[in-house]
Amino acid sequence: MAKQGLLIVISGPSGAGKGTVCRALLDQNPELVLSVSKTTRQPRAGEMDGVNYFFVNQKEFAESIKKEDFFEYARVYGEFYGTPRGAAEKMLSAGRDVILEIDPQGALQVKEAFPAGVLIFLLPPSGAELRSRIINRGTESAENLGQRLSAAADEVSLAHRYDYIVVNDRVEDARDRIVAIIRAESSSVARNTDLIQAITEEVKA
Amino acid sequence: MAKQGLLIVISGPSGAGKGTVCRALLDQNPELVLSVSKTTRQPRAGEMDGVNYFFVNQKEFAESIKKEDFFEYARVYGEFYGTPRGAAEKMLSAGRDVILEIDPQGALQVKEAFPAGVLIFLLPPSGAELRSRIINRGTESAENLGQRLSAAADEVSLAHRYDYIVVNDRVEDARDRIVAIIRAESSSVARNTDLIQAITEEVKA
Repeated sequence: MAKQGLLIVISGPSGAGKGTVCRALLDQNPELVLSVSKTTRQPRAGEMDGVNYFFVNQKEFAESIKKEDFFEYARVYGEFYGTPRGAAEKMLSAGRDVILEIDPQGALQVKEAFPAGVLIFLLPPSGAELRSRIINRGTESAENLGQRLSAAADEVSLAHRYDYIVVNDRVEDARDRIVAIIRAESSSVARNTDLIQAITEEVKA
Repeated sequence: MAKQGLLIVISGPSGAGKGTVCRALLDQNPELVLSVSKTTRQPRAGEMDGVNYFFVNQKEFAESIKKEDFFEYARVYGEFYGTPRGAAEKMLSAGRDVILEIDPQGALQVKEAFPAGVLIFLLPPSGAELRSRIINRGTESAENLGQRLSAAADEVSLAHRYDYIVVNDRVEDARDRIVAIIRAESSSVARNTDLIQAITEEVKA
């Protein structure tokens, strides 16, 4: 039987650079599998079914909910987004490591549904940097901006409930640190009890 | 204040290759500090004070015990061996990562004395390999050999109480995996709570 793969959840506030870091990670490590989410929203120009998302209708989405085939799902501006469970678990059973890229609330729901998941929180190099990324992003009223900054602070404070913190200063450094975390986690005692047992018995034999 | 360094304990049964892996690790990563043990035994040819051991007399060793300046110590064939605490803690406070190379029993005592220590258990690639290393090492009677194999099996079973398992098949691979563990541990949430707090406050400000 193949050793079970790792479920690696990469999260962080908007502006932390989740997408860029995940792409760099997958480009360098093609053995990793990226979980593709399902959504009921329409594809945007250039988006491909099965690559950016699985684009499904409301009925299909409801069926997946009913079959409990989501680690988590959420409704945002009237459209549904969900993280499929079955496909990920099949890959994990085959010994493949699976990457989820997901918002901070969703990541914590995945951890509840799948406690062996490894939660990595991406942080910008400083609060000032995160502020400026949020401020430069939109042309919002001062009131909306205040709300967005407050929401970002709330998201960052969720990091306490994660396993690891990775500062995204340079993308390559963040990627390398995530690779190190994956290697270390695969070496944890909890994931190697069979090996310890086998060697103990072989030495005695 | 510098971020506290990590105490990394590298252990494993005799025959696992602790010494070779530690040397490879320190050669490649000169920023790591190797803790040097104290002993009351006489230096052997080529051994240097402060490099292989601190060679002390019984009275000096007893004073260190009295001052509680050992993470752990043991008496083997009438001579004392101890792992100094004060020097390691000074380095950790300065933000340096400290490596201890120590037998499996001693490593667990260090963990009790210093719970934040990270315990890595080196395993040979197989039980058969460990058997043959033990068998080829000495010219022992069949009875002694049986005792040594049984002791090795007991040592391997202690691995369940460690944090990580690293298989020492190729020395370079084992070294790289330990480097990954050190990087991952320095990214753990527990070691980054100040950073989370600082960024949360900066974003709000």
